Amino acid sequence: MPLPNQDRLFPVEPNLRGLARALYESVEALPIISPHGHCDPRWFAQNERFPNPAELFVIPDHYVFRMLVSQGVRLEDLGVPREDGGAVERDPRAIWRRFAAHQKLFRATPSAMWLAHSFDQVFGLTEPLTEANADEFYDRIDTMLGQPDFRPRALFDRFGIEVLATTESALDDLAWHRQIAESGWQGRVITTYRPDAVVDPEFEGFAANIAQLGALTGEDTGTWQGYLAAHRARRAFFRDHGATATDHGHPSARTMDLPQADAAALYQKILTQGATAAEAEAFRGQMLTEMARMSVEDGMVMQIHPGSRRNHHAGVFARHGRDKGFDIPGRTDYVSDLQPLLDAVGMEPGLTIILFTLDETAYGRELAPLAGVYPALKLGPPWWFFDSYEGIQRYRETVTETAGFYNTAGFNDDTRAFCSIPARHDVARRSDCSYLANLVGTGRLSESEALEVAHDLTYRLAKDAYRL
Amino acid sequence: MPLPNQDRLFPVEPNLRGLARALYESVEALPIISPHGHCDPRWFAQNERFPNPAELFVIPDHYVFRMLVSQGVRLEDLGVPREDGGAVERDPRAIWRRFAAHQKLFRATPSAMWLAHSFDQVFGLTEPLTEANADEFYDRIDTMLGQPDFRPRALFDRFGIEVLATTESALDDLAWHRQIAESGWQGRVITTYRPDAVVDPEFEGFAANIAQLGALTGEDTGTWQGYLAAHRARRAFFRDHGATATDHGHPSARTMDLPQADAAALYQKILTQGATAAEAEAFRGQMLTEMARMSVEDGMVMQIHPGSRRNHHAGVFARHGRDKGFDIPGRTDYVSDLQPLLDAVGMEPGLTIILFTLDETAYGRELAPLAGVYPALKLGPPWWFFDSYEGIQRYRETVTETAGFYNTAGFNDDTRAFCSIPARHDVARRSDCSYLANLVGTGRLSESEALEVAHDLTYRLAKDAYRL
Amino acid sequence: MPLPNQDRLFPVEPNLRGLARALYESVEALPIISPHGHCDPRWFAQNERFPNPAELFVIPDHYVFRMLVSQGVRLEDLGVPREDGGAVERDPRAIWRRFAAHQKLFRATPSAMWLAHSFDQVFGLTEPLTEANADEFYDRIDTMLGQPDFRPRALFDRFGIEVLATTESALDDLAWHRQIAESGWQGRVITTYRPDAVVDPEFEGFAANIAQLGALTGEDTGTWQGYLAAHRARRAFFRDHGATATDHGHPSARTMDLPQADAAALYQKILTQGATAAEAEAFRGQMLTEMARMSVEDGMVMQIHPGSRRNHHAGVFARHGRDKGFDIPGRTDYVSDLQPLLDAVGMEPGLTIILFTLDETAYGRELAPLAGVYPALKLGPPWWFFDSYEGIQRYRETVTETAGFYNTAGFNDDTRAFCSIPARHDVARRSDCSYLANLVGTGRLSESEALEVAHDLTYRLAKDAYRL
Repeated sequence: MPLPNQDRLFPVEPNLRGLARALYESVEALPIISPHGHCDPRWFAQNERFPNPAELFVIPDHYVFRMLVSQGVRLEDLGVPREDGGAVERDPRAIWRRFAAHQKLFRATPSAMWLAHSFDQVFGLTEPLTEANADEFYDRIDTMLGQPDFRPRALFDRFGIEVLATTESALDDLAWHRQIAESGWQGRVITTYRPDAVVDPEFEGFAANIAQLGALTGEDTGTWQGYLAAHRARRAFFRDHGATATDHGHPSARTMDLPQADAAALYQKILTQGATAAEAEAFRGQMLTEMARMSVEDGMVMQIHPGSRRNHHAGVFARHGRDKGFDIPGRTDYVSDLQPLLDAVGMEPGLTIILFTLDETAYGRELAPLAGVYPALKLGPPWWFFDSYEGIQRYRETVTETAGFYNTAGFNDDTRAFCSIPARHDVARRSDCSYLANLVGTGRLSESEALEVAHDLTYRLAKDAYRL
Repeated sequence: MPLPNQDRLFPVEPNLRGLARALYESVEALPIISPHGHCDPRWFAQNERFPNPAELFVIPDHYVFRMLVSQGVRLEDLGVPREDGGAVERDPRAIWRRFAAHQKLFRATPSAMWLAHSFDQVFGLTEPLTEANADEFYDRIDTMLGQPDFRPRALFDRFGIEVLATTESALDDLAWHRQIAESGWQGRVITTYRPDAVVDPEFEGFAANIAQLGALTGEDTGTWQGYLAAHRARRAFFRDHGATATDHGHPSARTMDLPQADAAALYQKILTQGATAAEAEAFRGQMLTEMARMSVEDGMVMQIHPGSRRNHHAGVFARHGRDKGFDIPGRTDYVSDLQPLLDAVGMEPGLTIILFTLDETAYGRELAPLAGVYPALKLGPPWWFFDSYEGIQRYRETVTETAGFYNTAGFNDDTRAFCSIPARHDVARRSDCSYLANLVGTGRLSESEALEVAHDLTYRLAKDAYRL
Repeated sequence: MPLPNQDRLFPVEPNLRGLARALYESVEALPIISPHGHCDPRWFAQNERFPNPAELFVIPDHYVFRMLVSQGVRLEDLGVPREDGGAVERDPRAIWRRFAAHQKLFRATPSAMWLAHSFDQVFGLTEPLTEANADEFYDRIDTMLGQPDFRPRALFDRFGIEVLATTESALDDLAWHRQIAESGWQGRVITTYRPDAVVDPEFEGFAANIAQLGALTGEDTGTWQGYLAAHRARRAFFRDHGATATDHGHPSARTMDLPQADAAALYQKILTQGATAAEAEAFRGQMLTEMARMSVEDGMVMQIHPGSRRNHHAGVFARHGRDKGFDIPGRTDYVSDLQPLLDAVGMEPGLTIILFTLDETAYGRELAPLAGVYPALKLGPPWWFFDSYEGIQRYRETVTETAGFYNTAGFNDDTRAFCSIPARHDVARRSDCSYLANLVGTGRLSESEALEVAHDLTYRLAKDAYRL
C-alpha cells in the first residue's frame, strides 16, 4: 500500500481530478457523524489507554484476521480467544509480526487504505508496514498509546467526531453510557437499541433473555401485551441514554403483519414449546413490523441490516464463537419480504426506516425503486464488504438515478476499529467527491449543486436521517 | 440540473470526447423511431392543446410524482385522481409550484435531464426550474401550449418522429387510430396488440373481458379453439391499424407448452371455476407460447416485459389505482421460464421476440447468452428505471461481449410523457456514442465500424426488429 | 474489428495508458501457464497438420458458431455434424465464406479480438476479414497450415506455452498423453481428472460407466467402498500422466456430507433403481465432498465449474448433441450449497479448491467473502462468457476489495480453440494491467506493488494454485 497521497481516489483525468479535489476540500474538515457502529462505550467511560498495537489493530478486526486466515494463519496464532479457554498466542508483538509479514494480502483492499491512513494520520508512520519494520511500528505505536493524547477521549476529539452511536443489546444496563454522561466530558456518545436477543427465537438463550427483559422492566413478558410493553419501556430507557435509533440484524428482510391475536398465539407457542425455523422467521418478521409501529409512536429511527449468513463454519463457531469473519452474505429479497411492513406503515410521514444490504443486486432492482417511492424508507450506505471505493461507486451509480440523493442516509462507518473511523469517513468523502466530479464533468450536475450535495452526503443527510 | 450543454454525457478525456462528439453528430439528426410506448392516440386524433404544464409534466409522469411522494408529498396534492372521487388538488399552478419546490430531489436522475431538455428544446427555457421562477415557467409553457406550433401533431413533426407506436388493450376499438388514418395527417402513429386483459386470469374483470372478446370477434370464446380464433381476429384487426407488434406485461417470464388438450382443459377450468395462482401463472405461460406461434403465422413481433411487481402498496392501489409509481421490479428468471416457448419456436427463422428486463443481473447471465444463440430472440433496450445514462452503460458493457450489437433492438422510449421523447432518444444516442467512443479508444472497434454501429443503434436496428 | 494496436485495452488517459503499458511490457513475454482447457491431446501426440481453416476456426468453436446461429445461419451450413449422420456442409471453403460474411456480428466481442490476434500473430494477416477477402484468408491460412512451422507442437513452442492441461473423462485411457510422454518431445501437456460421467447419475450411460470404472480398476464398483477405491485408483493413474488437478462440471454447487452409511445406501439405491432428480443432485453433492477428501489425501487441486444449464434447446441437442452453444448460465448459490463440504474440509491447510462461476452476482456477495476467509478456497478467473475485457474488469473490481489478489488463481483460457490461447492470455494480461494502472493512478497501489502483482496474476498464481 502506498503512502496516502493528497489526490488518492480522485479520477486521473486532470479536469475531473481538479473538480473532485475542490469538492473534497469543501467537506474534508466537516465533523464526523457516526450514527451506526460498534465501538465499546467503556473506552470513553473509563478513558484508559488502549493496551497494545495488536489489540488495537488485529485481534478485534475481523476484516484483518479473516484475510490472514484465508491464507492459512490460524486464529489462535493471532490471539483470537477460544471459547473453551484453549491456548492462543499471548504475545502481542508476535501477533503484530505475523500481521506485518502478510501485508501484501491486503493490497487494493479497503483495509490497506484504512490501516495506512491510521498509521500516517494517528501515529505519524508514513512508510508501508513490512516484516522488516514491524518492531519499529510496534514500538512507536505502543509508546504513543501510553501518552495522554492517545487516550480514547483525546482521539475522539482529535478525530473531529460530533456524535458517535454505539450499539447495545436490549438487555444492556447502559452503565458505560451513564458513566460518560455523568463524567462531564463533552463528547457525544449515544446508544442504539438492538433487540435481536429478545426478538429472535433462535438467539442463544432466548427464553432466559425474555425472562430478563421482564425482570428489567417489571412487565409480564409471559404475555404478548406485556412483552410489547417491555419493549416500549426499554426503548424509552435507551432514549434516556441518547438513543435516536434501533437496529435489527436479521437473516432475511422478512416482515409479517399478523392479526394481533395470531401474533399473541405465535408468541405463546414459541415461549412454551419453542419455535420451528418457520415460526422463528415469522416471529422475527412480525417483530420488525411491531418495532416499526413503535417507531411511529416514539420517533426512533429504525435500521434493518439483513442478509448475513452468520457463523458459516460450524467448527470455527464452536471454537471461537461469533463475529470471527465467517459471516457470509446471501441473496436477500426486499420486495416481497418488506411488503407486510410497508403496507402497514410505509406511508407514515413521521417514520424513517433505513435499509442496508449485503446483496448489491438489490440496489437497482429493489432498494432504489422502493426508497424512491415510500416516504418511510431511506437507503443506508454500502455496508460491510462494500464499504470501499468500488463499492461506493457501484452504490451511487446504481441507486442515484432511481432514488436520487435525498432518499439516502449519508455515511456509516459501522466499525469496532476505532482508529479506522476517520480513515473510513475520508474514503467515503473522497469516493463520493469522485462520483460527483464525474457527474459534473459529464453535464449531469452543476458545480454549485455538487458542492451542496457533497456537504449533504458528508454531514447533513446522516444528521437528518438519524435525527441527531 | 445544469443547462444542457453540447458535450453532456460524453467522456471527459479529450480524445474520447472528440470521438463521442463525432459519432453523435453523425446520428443527432436521424428521425426518431419509437416502436414501443404509451402515448395517447387521442392527442394525434383530436390535435387539441395540452391543457396546462401540470397535466403535461407532473400528473401523468410516475417517475416525477413517485419521487415527490418518497419525500412526503401526497399524491392528492399533486392532482393524482382518487378512485373514490375524493378531493385532490385542482389548481394546476399549485401543483406546478410543489413540483418546482422539490427540484433538488431529481438531481442526477434521468428525469432531471429529460425535464431540462424539454424545457430548453421545446419551450426555450434555459434556466433551471426553481421555486422562485416556478410561475415564470408555468406562464411561459402555458402560453406556448396555446399556440398552434405546440399542438400534438406539430410537436410530433418538430420532434422528427418517423413512427410512433402506442399500446392498446386487445379490447380497444382503435377509434383514435382510425380517426388519425382518416384525417389525412401524414404522421405515422400505429398501435400495438396488448392482450394482458384477456390472457391473464388475475386481471380485473377477466371473465367479462373474455366475453367481450367473443362479442367483438363473433368467435365462441367459451371454447379454447374459439378463444384462439378470437385472438387471431383481433391481431388482424390491430394489423389493419398499423400494428407490427404485440406486447405482453407479465409478472414473470414463465412460459408453458402444454398439449393442446391440456391447454383447453385448463382454459375451461379457469373460465368455469376461476384460477388458482398456479393455474393463472400456467395459463399466462401457455398464452405466451400461443402468441409466439401466432407470430410465426402472421409475422407480428412479440415483446415480453416481465418482472414488475405491480401495485406494491395495497392502500395506494385502493385509493389511486394502477400505475402510480408503486410498481417495483423483482427477480426474474429467463433460462428455465422461457425454455418451453423456445423449445417450441425458438429456432424459427421468421420469428422475432424482443425481451426486456427489470432485473439487470439477467443481462450477462441469461439474456445475452440466450439472445446470442436463439435466432428468434432479440434484446430490448434498458427498460424503465434503467433507461438512463448509467443503465445504458451497464447494458452495453454486459450484453455486447456475448450477444454483439445485432441481437439487440435499438432504443425504445416506452413513455407516456410526450415531451420527453426527444430528450430520451437524445440521452440514448449520447450514451451509446460514449460507449462506442470507449470501444474505439481502447482498440476494440474501428472508427468506421463505430460510425456504422452508431447509425444502427439509433435507427436501423429498431426499424428492422419491429419491421417498420 | 480493427487491427491489433499496441495500446489496445489500455486506458485512454495518457498517464494511465503509460502506466498500463509499462506493466504490460513487464509481463508480455512471460510463458503461458494454461492449467485448464480442452485442447485435444491427440494434436500433440500425432503432430499432424490442422486440416483446414474452417476446422481450425469455425467448426469447433461454439463462441463463433452460436453467434452465426443467432442470426439465422443453420448449424448444418457451418459443417457442425449431425447425430443422425444427416447431411451437413462438407466444403470448408463454403463454411469459411459464410463465416467471413458475418464478421460484423462479432464487433466488440472477445471472439473478434481473439480472431484478429490469431490472424495477425499466427498467420500475418493484418487486414480485417471480410466477405471480399475471405478466399485470400482461406488460401493463406490453408497453405501455412501445411508447413512444418504450423504443426501443433511447433505452434505450442511458438506460443510460449510452459504447461498445458487438457481435460479427460475418468474413463479415458490417456493413450495420447502416454504417446506424448514417450515421444521425447519436451512440451508439457498434462491431463486433468474429470469424473462427471461416473459421479452424475443423470449422465448418459451412467450405469455402464460405473461398470467400466470397475473394469478399468479391478475394484468392485457395485459397492460404495469399491466405488471410492476405484476413484482413488483412477486419480493415481491420472497423476501418473501429469495430472495435478480434478475438474467437476455440475449444474449447481450443491455439496452434501452424508454419514457414510447413508451415502452407501444412496449409491446402492441409484445403482439398482436409478435416481430421482433430488437423489441425483444429492449424490453429485456427496461426491464433491468425497473428491475434496481425496484431494486432502493425494494433493490434487479441485476445480468446481457449476451453473451451466446444458443443452437448452431439446431439438438442437437431439440433432447435434452436446457443446453446441446452447449451454446457458443460471443463478448459482454458493453460500448454502458449499457449506457441507466446507464444514468438512474447508479449513484444511493442504487443500486447494478453485471455484468458478457463470453468475457474476456471486463475485461480491458470495465468492469473494468465502475465498477471503476459507484457506481451502481460491477463485478461478472470469469464465466462459465473462472471459473478456469487461468481464475481467468486473471481476477484479468486485472481487479484489474483499478477497485481495492472493485468493485468486491467475488466468485460465479454458479453450478448445488452440490458436486463441495466446490471444486470450494477451487479453487477460492487458486487462489486468489496465486494472492495475487504475489502482496506481488513484493511489490504491504503488507502482512497485503493481509490477509484482502483474507478474503474480500472469504467471505465479496459476502455477502455485495448480501446483505446476
